[in-house]
Amino acid sequence: MRKTIYEDQSTPKKDGYWMPGEFEPQERIYMLWPHRPDNWNMGAKPAQQTYANVARAIARFEPVVIGVKPEDYAAARYVFAEDENIDVVEMTSDDSWVRDCGPTFVKNADGDVRAVHWHFNAWGGYVDGLYFPWDQDELVGVKVADHAGVDRYRPDSFVLEGGSIHVDGEGTVITTEMCLLSEGRNPELSKEQIEGYLKEYLGVEKVIWVKDGIDPEETNGHIDDVACFVRPGEVACIWTDDEESPFYEASHAAYETLSHATDAKGRQLKVHKLTMPKKLTFMNEEQAASIDVVEGTLPRSPEDYSIASYMNFLIVNGAIIFPQYRDEYDALAVEQVQAMFPDREIVGVDTVEVAFGGGNIHCITQQLPKRG
Amino acid sequence: MRKTIYEDQSTPKKDGYWMPGEFEPQERIYMLWPHRPDNWNMGAKPAQQTYANVARAIARFEPVVIGVKPEDYAAARYVFAEDENIDVVEMTSDDSWVRDCGPTFVKNADGDVRAVHWHFNAWGGYVDGLYFPWDQDELVGVKVADHAGVDRYRPDSFVLEGGSIHVDGEGTVITTEMCLLSEGRNPELSKEQIEGYLKEYLGVEKVIWVKDGIDPEETNGHIDDVACFVRPGEVACIWTDDEESPFYEASHAAYETLSHATDAKGRQLKVHKLTMPKKLTFMNEEQAASIDVVEGTLPRSPEDYSIASYMNFLIVNGAIIFPQYRDEYDALAVEQVQAMFPDREIVGVDTVEVAFGGGNIHCITQQLPKRG
Repeated sequence: MRKTIYEDQSTPKKDGYWMPGEFEPQERIYMLWPHRPDNWNMGAKPAQQTYANVARAIARFEPVVIGVKPEDYAAARYVFAEDENIDVVEMTSDDSWVRDCGPTFVKNADGDVRAVHWHFNAWGGYVDGLYFPWDQDELVGVKVADHAGVDRYRPDSFVLEGGSIHVDGEGTVITTEMCLLSEGRNPELSKEQIEGYLKEYLGVEKVIWVKDGIDPEETNGHIDDVACFVRPGEVACIWTDDEESPFYEASHAAYETLSHATDAKGRQLKVHKLTMPKKLTFMNEEQAASIDVVEGTLPRSPEDYSIASYMNFLIVNGAIIFPQYRDEYDALAVEQVQAMFPDREIVGVDTVEVAFGGGNIHCITQQLPKRG
Repeated sequence: MRKTIYEDQSTPKKDGYWMPGEFEPQERIYMLWPHRPDNWNMGAKPAQQTYANVARAIARFEPVVIGVKPEDYAAARYVFAEDENIDVVEMTSDDSWVRDCGPTFVKNADGDVRAVHWHFNAWGGYVDGLYFPWDQDELVGVKVADHAGVDRYRPDSFVLEGGSIHVDGEGTVITTEMCLLSEGRNPELSKEQIEGYLKEYLGVEKVIWVKDGIDPEETNGHIDDVACFVRPGEVACIWTDDEESPFYEASHAAYETLSHATDAKGRQLKVHKLTMPKKLTFMNEEQAASIDVVEGTLPRSPEDYSIASYMNFLIVNGAIIFPQYRDEYDALAVEQVQAMFPDREIVGVDTVEVAFGGGNIHCITQQLPKRG
C-alpha cells in the first residue's frame, strides 16, 4: 500500500506540498455514481443520465474514473462500455459528492502528488448532517488516493469538504465562515486553529474568509457555490441585482469581501461577476414525490429553492464544464465565464438534475493534478 | 473502458493471443479476501490471516493486488498498510477463489495482454454448485481485467474455471473430463465443442484429457489439484503408494495418462511425481462447529477428507509459493518440487486453513503475465 502520513508524523506544508489551482494541468477527474433514492428523484436514474453527460463532457478533455457501488456496478459498467476515456471502478459510497467526501490532492516542486484524506461527516454529523451513516463516504478518500497511487496525509479528526475551499495555488485559500466555523464540523477548534489546519494541509499562507454561502441548510454555505479562483489574483463571484433574490445579500457581501481582499502575494483581488439563474425553483410535483422519504432526511417540495449556482463549474484541461439550468440566464452565464477564461472552451451541460440533489458539476468531481 | 470482444466478434486464437505458461514472467498476482462464514471457520479470521501470509510470501517476488468486499475493506486495508508490494482494492465477491471466478490472461507476440472472462456458476450452478448466488463472483472477471487495464474476451455462455486448466504456453492444455464434461457446466456442448472453446480461448492446439480429479464434490475434479506444467514437455502429477488412499486410483490413472501423452509439439511428456500429504483429515471439532450452516451448502465434519494437494502451488517470478499442511510429508514435497524447479526458491506457507475452505494457493491466486 502507499504510505499514510498521520498528523503527528507530518503535514503537506512541512513536506513542501501545496494544493494547486484547479486551473493548473490535470491528470484525470474522479466521480461517484449517484444512487440514493432518498436524495435523487426517480430512483436516481435521471441523475445517473446527467452524471454520464457530465462525465462524457469531461472525457473530451481528460480521463474520468467513476466509482460505483457494487449493486450498480454491472449496469454502470455497461453504460460506459464504449467510452474510451471513462473508467468504471467498484467504490462504495453513501452518496456521490466526491468533491466533498473525496481527497484533496497536493503537489510538490518535483511534481509528486499526494492526497489529503479529510474527515467527512455528511456536512455536519450529528448536528446537521444530511444523512446517516456516512462511513462509506469517509472511506472514499483513501480509495481514491489508492486508485491514484499516491501517499496520503490523514489528520487526526479535522473535518473538511473539498467544496468548502478554493485555492490559487500560490498561497491563498478562500472559504466561508458559515461552513468552516459551523457547529457540525470542528466545534472544538478556534478560528485560528482552523486557519492553522488549512495552512498545514493546503500549504497556504493566507485564508480569505467570506462570511456566508447560499445554502445554509445543505453544505452550510460552501464557497464553491459562491466564488472561485479564475487564476492567481482573479476570482469569480456570484451576483444578482434582484433585491428580492434570497441570494442577494450573500452575493453582495461576498463581492464586497473579495473586492477588498489581498492574497498571499499581496495582490488586491480582481473580481468577476457571475450571474445567478433567474429561476429559484426547478423541481416539479412528480419529481419531488418520487424521492423516498426517510426519517432524518430533509423533506422535499417543488417550492424549495434549488441551489443552482453557475459558480459550481469544473475547470479541466482546456475547458470549463459548465452547468446549464434551462434558465433565461444560461446564455448570459456562459458569456460571462467565457470572458473570464478566454482560452478555454465553455462546455455547457444540462445539470438541473444535479441541482435537485443539492449541488452541481464542481460538487460531483475531483481533479487529480498532473504529476511530474 | 477497455474493449469487450464478444464471441461473435473474435476470439484469442483468431487474434493471435494464447495463454502463457504460469512459469513465464509475471507482472502481478491477484487475490480476493475470504469472508463467507458458511465456508470458512471462525468467521474467516484464520483464513484471512493465512491469505495474508500467502500474499506476503508472493510480495517478496512480485506485486499483489487483493480485492476486498466493502464490509471488509477498512480492516483489510489496515492489515496491509505497511506492505509496500501489496495493494488492497474494493472488489465484491461471493467467495475468494480468484483462480476460478477471475479472468484468464492471454498474450500475443507483441507482448500485449488481454483477459478471457469466462462464465462462472460456482462450480456447477443449479446442478451441484457450491453456493447461490454467484453474481458477484461472475463480475470479478471484468473487474480484474479493468484493474489490469486490458481488453476482455467474453464468450456467450461458456462456463470454465481457471483451476480446471493448465497450459504449457506452447499449444497444449491439460484438463479433466470429470470437470469439463460435468453436467453443471456446459451440458449442451459435446466434448469436441468444449475442445473447440479451449482451443479458441486459450490459443492451444491440443487438449490432453485426464479422466478424474480428486474432489468430485467440490470443484468436480480440477486439474490444479492433480497435475501442472513444470515447463514445456514436463508435468508434475500427484502420487501416492498407499493403496488405501482415496486418491490412489485417480493419481495413478492421471500418471498413466500423462506418461503416455504427447503435447502439441509432439513431445512425449516427462512426468514428475509429487506426493500427497499423509493425513487425510485436518479440521477439528471446534473449527467444524464454527462454520455457519446454511441451507444448500455442504455440511462439514472433522471426518471429511480435506482436499489438501501439494500440487496446488503457485509459480511466481523466481519462486514457488508452496502449501504446507503440518504433515509428515511436507518436507518431502518441498524436496520433490525443488528438484522439478532447481532455479526457483521454494517458499512454504502453512495453508491448512485454505485447505479447509476447499482449495489452496493456486486456487486463491491468478497471475497477470508480464506485458511487453
